[in-house]
Amino acid sequence: MQVDLAFSPYELEKKDLQDKTVVVIDALRATSTMIVAFENGCSAFIPVATVEEAKKLAAWRNDPQLLLGGERRALPVEGFQLGNSPRDYRPEKVKGKVVVMTTTNGTRALLAAGKAKEVFIGAFLNLSALCRRLREAGREVLIACSGEKDLFCLEDVVCGGAIVSLMEKDGLAVLKSDSALAAKILYEYFAEDIYGMLAACEWGQYLERMGLGKDVRICAQIDSSKLVPIYREGKVYLDR
Amino acid sequence: MQVDLAFSPYELEKKDLQDKTVVVIDALRATSTMIVAFENGCSAFIPVATVEEAKKLAAWRNDPQLLLGGERRALPVEGFQLGNSPRDYRPEKVKGKVVVMTTTNGTRALLAAGKAKEVFIGAFLNLSALCRRLREAGREVLIACSGEKDLFCLEDVVCGGAIVSLMEKDGLAVLKSDSALAAKILYEYFAEDIYGMLAACEWGQYLERMGLGKDVRICAQIDSSKLVPIYREGKVYLDR
Repeated sequence: MQVDLAFSPYELEKKDLQDKTVVVIDALRATSTMIVAFENGCSAFIPVATVEEAKKLAAWRNDPQLLLGGERRALPVEGFQLGNSPRDYRPEKVKGKVVVMTTTNGTRALLAAGKAKEVFIGAFLNLSALCRRLREAGREVLIACSGEKDLFCLEDVVCGGAIVSLMEKDGLAVLKSDSALAAKILYEYFAEDIYGMLAACEWGQYLERMGLGKDVRICAQIDSSKLVPIYREGKVYLDR
Repeated sequence: MQVDLAFSPYELEKKDLQDKTVVVIDALRATSTMIVAFENGCSAFIPVATVEEAKKLAAWRNDPQLLLGGERRALPVEGFQLGNSPRDYRPEKVKGKVVVMTTTNGTRALLAAGKAKEVFIGAFLNLSALCRRLREAGREVLIACSGEKDLFCLEDVVCGGAIVSLMEKDGLAVLKSDSALAAKILYEYFAEDIYGMLAACEWGQYLERMGLGKDVRICAQIDSSKLVPIYREGKVYLDR
């Protein structure tokens, strides 16, 4: 099956999504955090674009099962119960809960991916499980990197390249584009030390400076989860 | 000096250009073609965004020294004397002439770079000469890849990565961004066979299908020129 890759939501919006499976990646940290949350019993995420929208939705629903989560510049938002750190999403906090989530990049990529046939949540945490799901789906794959404010982010592209590389090794991938090929080369360059890459890239360094280095380590735990959340009709959840 | 890289004019427009030297690259083919034209005695280029603008400017100037050049989808434009093939710009055609030029991507990148302190024209053809000029200039460098309609193009990023790599080997470059690092890794991956990369990338394959494979070979002639054209006050020319 053909595999293409978009470096940013801006690029994603320029591509044809029809009949494709899109994988949304925000390796540091949104999609990694979601996977950790589902491992801890979280029931769903509702991604929204703005803080105001999140607050409005929560007020309107007025449901104790509903929590607010997310970040701006990596920091928790005032009035929100949860940030964007995987360490926030402990079982006692999120079990059975629905989280209205807004982050700068990951949420934007998810919303842009909404027109695709199927949307999966990807991160280093669920690489192998994700590739199995893509194989089952059997459709053309478009990997959507969240980037940073529509600019290139190394960590998302390397994670996307890992998917390309794994699928190619399985004899599944036909590289459709320069960007998929570039991502694969970048992944193979860093494959031996994904944590080192995550800690050294621009956003990883920023998180370190903000005292969030522990999060980077969690986001580097390759294949620590078998869960592949899907994004459908405005919600991220587990369909199996 | 710090080195950053933009994958596309869209990314370039999001970056701060003040006090920087910008290198504009459209390796297949606009910036390569310009260098060949200057080698053949061309006097200047005036880059404009649209075919209409080019025609209007030529009609208004009504000067026999003025020619129209450029492409749309790699093909010559009706009524233009020159296309975007380096083979069009033979001495007998371009010596002493000024070319009003419009191409889909290269021109757009040049116009977006206009706000920088200084703008150089780069391609595989003038890599070493370009790095010498960047060293002399001594300013922060921003490499502007033309891309393809604001999407990633392998050939421009690999060419940009060659500049990063050469400057780093000279002890000059401090990589400022994920994108500069990624470009360097991609260049080093393809360094042994730049022609092979140019022929295999998406745009190179398209040119081949259009019967323009000879152009790809010309654009792969590393260091065939010592010329470094500059873009200043709306014109591309040689200042020395």
